[in-house]
Amino acid sequence: MSDFPKFVEFHEEGMREGFQIEPQIYPIEERVELINALSETGLKHIQVGSFVNPKKVPTMADTPEMFSRINKKPGVQYTGLWLNESGFRRALDTPGIDLKGDLFFYASEGLARSNNNLSFDEMMTAQERWLDLYIENNIDIDSAGFMCCFGCNIDGDIPMSRVLQLIDFTNQLCKSRGVPLPTLLIADTMGWANPEQVKQRIGAIREKYPDARLAMHIHDTRGLGVANVYAALEMGVDRFDSSIAGLGGCPFAGHKDHKAAGNVCTEDSVFLCHELGIETGIDLGKLIEASQMAEKIIGRYLNGKVMHSGSLSHFRATA
Amino acid sequence: MSDFPKFVEFHEEGMREGFQIEPQIYPIEERVELINALSETGLKHIQVGSFVNPKKVPTMADTPEMFSRINKKPGVQYTGLWLNESGFRRALDTPGIDLKGDLFFYASEGLARSNNNLSFDEMMTAQERWLDLYIENNIDIDSAGFMCCFGCNIDGDIPMSRVLQLIDFTNQLCKSRGVPLPTLLIADTMGWANPEQVKQRIGAIREKYPDARLAMHIHDTRGLGVANVYAALEMGVDRFDSSIAGLGGCPFAGHKDHKAAGNVCTEDSVFLCHELGIETGIDLGKLIEASQMAEKIIGRYLNGKVMHSGSLSHFRATA
Repeated sequence: MSDFPKFVEFHEEGMREGFQIEPQIYPIEERVELINALSETGLKHIQVGSFVNPKKVPTMADTPEMFSRINKKPGVQYTGLWLNESGFRRALDTPGIDLKGDLFFYASEGLARSNNNLSFDEMMTAQERWLDLYIENNIDIDSAGFMCCFGCNIDGDIPMSRVLQLIDFTNQLCKSRGVPLPTLLIADTMGWANPEQVKQRIGAIREKYPDARLAMHIHDTRGLGVANVYAALEMGVDRFDSSIAGLGGCPFAGHKDHKAAGNVCTEDSVFLCHELGIETGIDLGKLIEASQMAEKIIGRYLNGKVMHSGSLSHFRATA
Repeated sequence: MSDFPKFVEFHEEGMREGFQIEPQIYPIEERVELINALSETGLKHIQVGSFVNPKKVPTMADTPEMFSRINKKPGVQYTGLWLNESGFRRALDTPGIDLKGDLFFYASEGLARSNNNLSFDEMMTAQERWLDLYIENNIDIDSAGFMCCFGCNIDGDIPMSRVLQLIDFTNQLCKSRGVPLPTLLIADTMGWANPEQVKQRIGAIREKYPDARLAMHIHDTRGLGVANVYAALEMGVDRFDSSIAGLGGCPFAGHKDHKAAGNVCTEDSVFLCHELGIETGIDLGKLIEASQMAEKIIGRYLNGKVMHSGSLSHFRATA
């Protein structure tokens, strides 16, 4: 029935998704220590921060300094996020960053307007400019991300046809520039997805693009995060964005009081994979320690589960 | 692929599982108010408390008084738990209780010994006495519960053969007394299950006992609770034990510091069902209000997700 991948790749986003929406700026030493701990877990992709307007998002103002302070472990990619050209230029000027080009589409026009003041069509054509910028700067295109593929607090339910329209556009765009179709990153930005919908939508995309690599960005807003990871694994998805300790949350999704759950939790998802016999290259024990460190830094109870209960390895060893 | 039930029944256990392991006794007025709120949600099965040794579990000492104080809503069953004959006698003497007979088996001998000082065989034969007691007192047998069907902190992984051995014993026992096989309540007492294992084990039981009604008791200890509910739904399971706000936790599973997650969360599981198009007869909005009331009474952040984020109905209505 299931078609699990043999190996799943996790892209750790807690340093950005989590710390970005905090009301306070935590000492850079502590955040650097946390990244260094994450580097020792076996994670190969760590998003360090974002290059956004420091006045608007002061918690991310020292992202360039973070790159200069962390111990870069060979084999690990340390990435950053930008949303406009001035941010991209700052990233280009940051020593030590692993640059990769990501395209961003909104399946929700409401969110495109609210985030970027763009119409649906303008948002699509804006990505042409990004693709050309990456090509000009010799930056590989890593992924095309599609926000709100399952629903949106502004636009409500999102039809599958709109998701496919965006993917078709991306495919045509990449063809026109002679670059391969990047990983298609299907995002549940506001926690609307349920596992059946994940199976149906991933299935529909796979049917039309059987050779594309699919990834998912999942939020646990309404408690279905790990169930959605499981459904995606059943559909063969082998790459996930996630956050240690379940850090994060979309600031546009009413998460400002920190009570609503954030991104799907890395260690809980890794635990799921390992229990299903899927390899991740990650040392779950070390990942749990990093999550506990995150909880200590942030200073309040965080939503991860395995970080509080421990995995099963100890019990299996002593049974 | 999936064979979802049309209607799923939730048995609310938060009042027992949750309040039983708290270090303090909350005012009875507040607990009564919470049960009264739960009664208005559409839940048809509410476990009020347990008849255990008041000296050992003082938080449950006033269970009989709870029954006399709550507003019993017609159509709702208000039940209690007992683990020994003196507890059963107290339940028999409690006005207002809906008595139903449950058998309890441990797939883990370690837990049987630690909880009841019984060997595996003694634990099985002890259930003969319970069945006879229920028959003597004209109490219908509601379920046979099988603890630790997926693993145990003491015994480690539990072979499926042992679970089937217990079910076979139950089947023979019921036949010998001329009573129908009750609902088989498959419990993941310590949070060891993963969704594939749920599918395999529920599938194996269904294959051998195609006419039996199956229920599950799921803990969210390691974050897979809702994913396990989803897997069980895929296998047609139509009855779940759960706790509002994710209250609870097994005191034998190292949950004493309240950081580890408890039972699978009722409102998150109900949200899952509704998103999958499965009816529950429950008003999710009212259930969320009851969970928020529980958080207010207990006075610390509770693990439920939908209770903090809200469901999607508001967004769908305004989109």
